[in-house]
Amino acid sequence: MVRIEDIQAAAERIRPFIVRTPLIPAGWADDDRPLWIKPESLQPIGAFKVRGAFNAVGHLDESVRSRGVVAYSSGNHAQAVAYAAAVYGVPAHIVMPEETPNVKVAATRSHGADVVLCAPSQRENVAAEVVEKTGGVLVPPFDHLDVIAGQGTIGLEIAEDLPAVETVLVPVSGGGLASGVGTAIKALCPHARVFGVEPELASDTAQGLGLGHRVDWSIEDRNRTIADGLRSQPSELTFAHLQKVLDGVVTVSENEIRAAVRDLAHRAHLISEPSGAVALAAYRREFTPPGRTVMILSGGNIEPELLQAILAG
Amino acid sequence: MVRIEDIQAAAERIRPFIVRTPLIPAGWADDDRPLWIKPESLQPIGAFKVRGAFNAVGHLDESVRSRGVVAYSSGNHAQAVAYAAAVYGVPAHIVMPEETPNVKVAATRSHGADVVLCAPSQRENVAAEVVEKTGGVLVPPFDHLDVIAGQGTIGLEIAEDLPAVETVLVPVSGGGLASGVGTAIKALCPHARVFGVEPELASDTAQGLGLGHRVDWSIEDRNRTIADGLRSQPSELTFAHLQKVLDGVVTVSENEIRAAVRDLAHRAHLISEPSGAVALAAYRREFTPPGRTVMILSGGNIEPELLQAILAG
Repeated sequence: MVRIEDIQAAAERIRPFIVRTPLIPAGWADDDRPLWIKPESLQPIGAFKVRGAFNAVGHLDESVRSRGVVAYSSGNHAQAVAYAAAVYGVPAHIVMPEETPNVKVAATRSHGADVVLCAPSQRENVAAEVVEKTGGVLVPPFDHLDVIAGQGTIGLEIAEDLPAVETVLVPVSGGGLASGVGTAIKALCPHARVFGVEPELASDTAQGLGLGHRVDWSIEDRNRTIADGLRSQPSELTFAHLQKVLDGVVTVSENEIRAAVRDLAHRAHLISEPSGAVALAAYRREFTPPGRTVMILSGGNIEPELLQAILAG
Repeated sequence: MVRIEDIQAAAERIRPFIVRTPLIPAGWADDDRPLWIKPESLQPIGAFKVRGAFNAVGHLDESVRSRGVVAYSSGNHAQAVAYAAAVYGVPAHIVMPEETPNVKVAATRSHGADVVLCAPSQRENVAAEVVEKTGGVLVPPFDHLDVIAGQGTIGLEIAEDLPAVETVLVPVSGGGLASGVGTAIKALCPHARVFGVEPELASDTAQGLGLGHRVDWSIEDRNRTIADGLRSQPSELTFAHLQKVLDGVVTVSENEIRAAVRDLAHRAHLISEPSGAVALAAYRREFTPPGRTVMILSGGNIEPELLQAILAG
């Protein structure tokens, strides 16, 4: 399991490469639940994934790293690994499912990465083939201690900026972000509660935590949600973290996600991708307790056409 | 004239109330002109004006402040003074021109302020009447040393975060922001160049600095620009600062402003009002020299309908 010391070491390792995002007070929030937004959409590549990628790539031995890195991802992790590889000056091979939004494919290529498109169900196999062929090192999107520790630096910063935080709302997909943030918050702010947030249409983690074991939803089912960054499922490693650090999982509807994207644009002046807005959707449902609340806006990479459609209501 | 010491004192005074905005690296910028965005849209009330307002209101003697404050403003300064007054627990009377966007009038009232609408040309007179009637203290939008010093804290933060900055792009209207930022940058980064940016349709400062004296454009002319926050003209005080601290003024077209709002949304994930985007429009014209460039995104308060129209191209 990831320890707070791993997250603190990650913070030092990635400091030169990431934005130290501030907590943005939401003046329009409920009086009894003051809200702060952690805008990870402002990171290079527009999402929190850059933290885990830089920690994983940065932690590699230089002789190993020089052979290059390989990743499979529905988007933001792909860009993050491509960007980290470019900064470290090593090759990146990125395996992406064919339905990935164009904006994410183009952004990944813009960092000089070699992009391999494949069927969604084949991406892990194809990534393994690329590792075999290139000798590169696989950087998984969430199932890795260094990736979890890197994402956990968000929790470290929340604890530094608002030590009296009472509730943290964090999106859950593969669970790397929630595992890392939960670990940091429980270590540094033990009285705070940490809630995961999932789309109803991809709420395998809410179900699995209730049952006490991982459940497997079909990709077809999970692909129904507009939140394209939240279609993965936890691994054994992240599920074990989530069981330990989450106080619950809130699920939100597609309409609530769209309304949250609108609210973030109009009230907070921040562009969020649907996956990035689920924590605000959960906040607005008032399922979480009163008290000082931080929501993680995990990313802002949304296709212009989709953004326009959502803003039009 | 405002001194760097005044700006440093302002930074201490306003620290509890404002967001310490980070510099956001724009990975999509030109290689020879790396760009960072200072997103003042993330401040409480959505604009930099909160800095000057908190410095001016905070600097008042408590016995004086308790009589309340009065402001006239096309919008963001109004909200800023209303918000600062609410935080300090004193009354606020805000005089606003009738054509002010609804979003700004509503936001001002939401802070508990008394809003007085009037004809645009009458707002200074009406504000004087309100001062007479209420005994409150006028907090002018830019023509005041404390307001200039407050806005200058942005320059202080830029110098702290990127001491090797070579170019700073700052919107100019009444000139409080540019005066303060320019004073801070010239004191702390003497080799950096500071350029003001104006809409072509309200480029009185570009013309005035060229002629060596202030020029007066009609309100009707200045109101042509979509950038409703940039329709004011410098006072003698701010013009004197601008003459000293600006290396030039870049003017931008209405279409360039709209394109810059789109770019900030799609590439930087930040919602900007038209006035807030002019510095990016100037950057994109490539009128400014190569080198590390910081643009100030001054505010994000845009009507949803206008945002949608601009995003639709």
